[in-house]
Amino acid sequence: MSNESAIDTFLSARASLIQEDRSLRREFSSPNPPRSDKEVEADKIVRKIRAHEAATIWKEEHPSVPHPFPGMEFLTGKSIIVKTKLFEILSKMPKGALLHAHLDATVNAEYLLELAYKYDAVHIRVHEPLDASNLSTNLPEFRYLPSTEFTSLSSLTDPSYLLGSWVPLKSARNSFPSELGGQDGFDKWVVGSMTINPTEAYVTHNTITKIWQKFTSTFITSTGLIRVEPIFSAYIKQFFLSSIEDGVSYVEPRINFLNKYMVGADGQENIPHRDWLVMFDRVLNEVKEEMAQQGREGAFIGARIIYSTIRFITSEELDWYLEDCIALKKEFPHLIAGFDLVGDENELKPLIYYAKNLLRFCERQKEEGVDIPFIFHAGETLGDGTEADLNLYDAILLGTKRIGHGYSLVKHPKLMKTCREKGIAVEVCPISNEILRLTSSMPMHPLPILMNNGVPVSLSSDDPAVFGNMGLTFDYFQVLVASEITGLSTLSALARDSFEFSTLHEETKNAGLAGFEKRWEEFIDWVLEYGKV
Amino acid sequence: MSNESAIDTFLSARASLIQEDRSLRREFSSPNPPRSDKEVEADKIVRKIRAHEAATIWKEEHPSVPHPFPGMEFLTGKSIIVKTKLFEILSKMPKGALLHAHLDATVNAEYLLELAYKYDAVHIRVHEPLDASNLSTNLPEFRYLPSTEFTSLSSLTDPSYLLGSWVPLKSARNSFPSELGGQDGFDKWVVGSMTINPTEAYVTHNTITKIWQKFTSTFITSTGLIRVEPIFSAYIKQFFLSSIEDGVSYVEPRINFLNKYMVGADGQENIPHRDWLVMFDRVLNEVKEEMAQQGREGAFIGARIIYSTIRFITSEELDWYLEDCIALKKEFPHLIAGFDLVGDENELKPLIYYAKNLLRFCERQKEEGVDIPFIFHAGETLGDGTEADLNLYDAILLGTKRIGHGYSLVKHPKLMKTCREKGIAVEVCPISNEILRLTSSMPMHPLPILMNNGVPVSLSSDDPAVFGNMGLTFDYFQVLVASEITGLSTLSALARDSFEFSTLHEETKNAGLAGFEKRWEEFIDWVLEYGKV
Repeated sequence: MSNESAIDTFLSARASLIQEDRSLRREFSSPNPPRSDKEVEADKIVRKIRAHEAATIWKEEHPSVPHPFPGMEFLTGKSIIVKTKLFEILSKMPKGALLHAHLDATVNAEYLLELAYKYDAVHIRVHEPLDASNLSTNLPEFRYLPSTEFTSLSSLTDPSYLLGSWVPLKSARNSFPSELGGQDGFDKWVVGSMTINPTEAYVTHNTITKIWQKFTSTFITSTGLIRVEPIFSAYIKQFFLSSIEDGVSYVEPRINFLNKYMVGADGQENIPHRDWLVMFDRVLNEVKEEMAQQGREGAFIGARIIYSTIRFITSEELDWYLEDCIALKKEFPHLIAGFDLVGDENELKPLIYYAKNLLRFCERQKEEGVDIPFIFHAGETLGDGTEADLNLYDAILLGTKRIGHGYSLVKHPKLMKTCREKGIAVEVCPISNEILRLTSSMPMHPLPILMNNGVPVSLSSDDPAVFGNMGLTFDYFQVLVASEITGLSTLSALARDSFEFSTLHEETKNAGLAGFEKRWEEFIDWVLEYGKV
Repeated sequence: MSNESAIDTFLSARASLIQEDRSLRREFSSPNPPRSDKEVEADKIVRKIRAHEAATIWKEEHPSVPHPFPGMEFLTGKSIIVKTKLFEILSKMPKGALLHAHLDATVNAEYLLELAYKYDAVHIRVHEPLDASNLSTNLPEFRYLPSTEFTSLSSLTDPSYLLGSWVPLKSARNSFPSELGGQDGFDKWVVGSMTINPTEAYVTHNTITKIWQKFTSTFITSTGLIRVEPIFSAYIKQFFLSSIEDGVSYVEPRINFLNKYMVGADGQENIPHRDWLVMFDRVLNEVKEEMAQQGREGAFIGARIIYSTIRFITSEELDWYLEDCIALKKEFPHLIAGFDLVGDENELKPLIYYAKNLLRFCERQKEEGVDIPFIFHAGETLGDGTEADLNLYDAILLGTKRIGHGYSLVKHPKLMKTCREKGIAVEVCPISNEILRLTSSMPMHPLPILMNNGVPVSLSSDDPAVFGNMGLTFDYFQVLVASEITGLSTLSALARDSFEFSTLHEETKNAGLAGFEKRWEEFIDWVLEYGKV
């Protein structure tokens, strides 16, 4: 063969091999429609901007960002991300559904604190003397007290302060000493106790075990503010509204039902689970109505709850929650979307520990005539063959509808095949995985492996209030900049799959998808305009 | 179904699923023999020690090791690794063959410096004034000078020193000022210029681009000492001997033939490639004889060279090297094992740039009646769809016998299948990948994905002189501690595959394997004894 024809043969074999290797990707398969000419054009614009920004803004020196690169550590790179055109573009993109988010970490901490300031009943305390040296580790505790227990203490730091006694929130703020930053310092301290900062993630708590300790502490702190009847409704509303503003039109949050009651307006822990759902439903309808009034019905098609408890309970205790979940499903069939167990898989109980109870739960559902799919967290680990990794086998054998995280799924060829063939989507949370130290940056993230194996993926934010990745724009951004294969059509396939693998009934799902297609077309037109400037 | 029988059914389905998921692993398939009862027992001992050490030595506080965990950053964790029983065990383990190592980084820098001190002809210079603030970035340059050019300068730091002028190595050392650490400081400075330290890898050069700059500089520095006829032979000999001491019985180093000559004993650059091979052959026979004299024939069955040049040359220049390689193969058929192109794939030319020349090379081999397999570096990158990632398609289409690194191979389902079916082994270099910032630690390394997909793997050290992972014990250690699935039988499968996928002829390969089996059995007996203590 002449060298010319040899190279031609080679190039043609090469093109075929690349195509075959990528043939399972979701953007090339149904239900994703073939790309329009306009989308091809818009995709080129986005790729050009991405390449330009990779060579400019991500190569420049930035104050306090020592090693910038696209897909870098989120908490450090965020200040650069928000300056990019790519971020501006993605913030306009319709994102479909958010399928993996823990309700208690869906509203930013500053907003939550603002809500708390509205109530005189909110008190705060510390258990160790506060000083400049321990501000980042001395965590506040909050409680919404009955009026009979209100105090007139004025300061957490006065020499007369008795450790462990409650101080009204606003008084504590007003009296916060200037050497700790005064009122701003107070807000910063409280917000810091409910969020993870770059030093924690990348220096002081830079292992999975240590960052999970900090991460868990943020929930312990914020729960005293969130699980309070008057605040809870406002919190949910803000979650819905901010999601809508980011282009998310359906949410399926996990709500932690571990505590059997939340605190009522009277300061007593007396609001049972069914009332939580009543509140949720009321806010949901309120927001839908508001959107309708603004002529934006399609922008928000609903919200459903994944009932969750924590995987440190005993199997006997689990039975109570499973029955509770069934009872709620019977009363609120439109609200309960599924069941999950949450918490650090590396440290807490594996699914196999609960297997008997979970199998019985399936039988019980048949008896009660309800359908509550499992939507399990599984494989959120770097372990290979550890209990957390083995959770993937159990989740799939128990019939999980989707997999939360599934970070270690890529190690399991048989399980990836099962997910592809049975349509088990993986809720991938890129920024969460990075901050919780499963990966050090997005280029190291295994997402491309799932994609190239045709495993359906729904991008999710997990705990945006703690990580600072509010909405879905940041997660889409990190994914887009970390791959030369991923383009606009990949992102639209991800967004479509978030509807496809939601628990929505066929009719609502199709309505959601139809609305998405319309907004996607508008978005493409917008990108084409943007590209002209 | 009763809950009892439901759980039984579940557990049995679970066991099958796990088995099926792992069925492609090499330790369960030929040519690996079924495990003996003794090996099963020894494996239990090793697992027990691993679990114990994970819970003790890796959880304790260590001075200057802030976040210890098994499989942590090698340069920081090394001081803990060498204290473990697991390391002691692995250092006794027969390792099979070393298939991926760059000759110029196979002998530790201290030893190289000792060699250099033996020759008055070795001179050193700097191009910037040396002081305490720039010691780690002001790199020395070495040259073995002809006697006519010897100098009588005495110091690199004397105010009279003219930048860029040569100082005899020993004089420079003797006069190294005490504020820079005196003679020890001199050695430290020189060794530091040829190695990567923890601060460089994990702080100052903590991106792939930056660490590659440091990495490349170590080769530029050391080449002035290594590519010198009198030193070269001693260097190779030390590489062979230290490999043997670590349980490696065959090596297939890559030698960089970019420079057409090395410096001869007369200080002139006049030693052509064929003479390098003559030296290599002489040392090889010397070491074999020495081993035979010690009654340890089986401990070293040989060494073959992968002819390499650097992927920054033009395609026209490549033709010269390809012809040079053919000529050497014809003269030294037993020494030339294959051909490769090396250097940072993210920055240098992709294989496709050279495709025409490489295809013609295949034709030329037929004409000349030689067989020189490609053994390409490919996919040593975090890129997804970048040129470095696409190198994998080209390497495979060009018929590569093995893949050097193949770090991004796990993203490519079709290519992994091809590697499994065609027997293309991947030379995985765990510690290299971590220090060069492809992964932050071993638990993040994609090796388990290759293993579970049945892709043959040969563990390798890559550049032990630069990384400090001399021998193969460190790399085996990092792999063993990062997985609960991996045990002794996994390690023996890796070692066997390093023979299986070497370029050795059938007969020698089988002899190597037979010798390995004998030493493996002795090792297992040793572990059983060790376990009793």
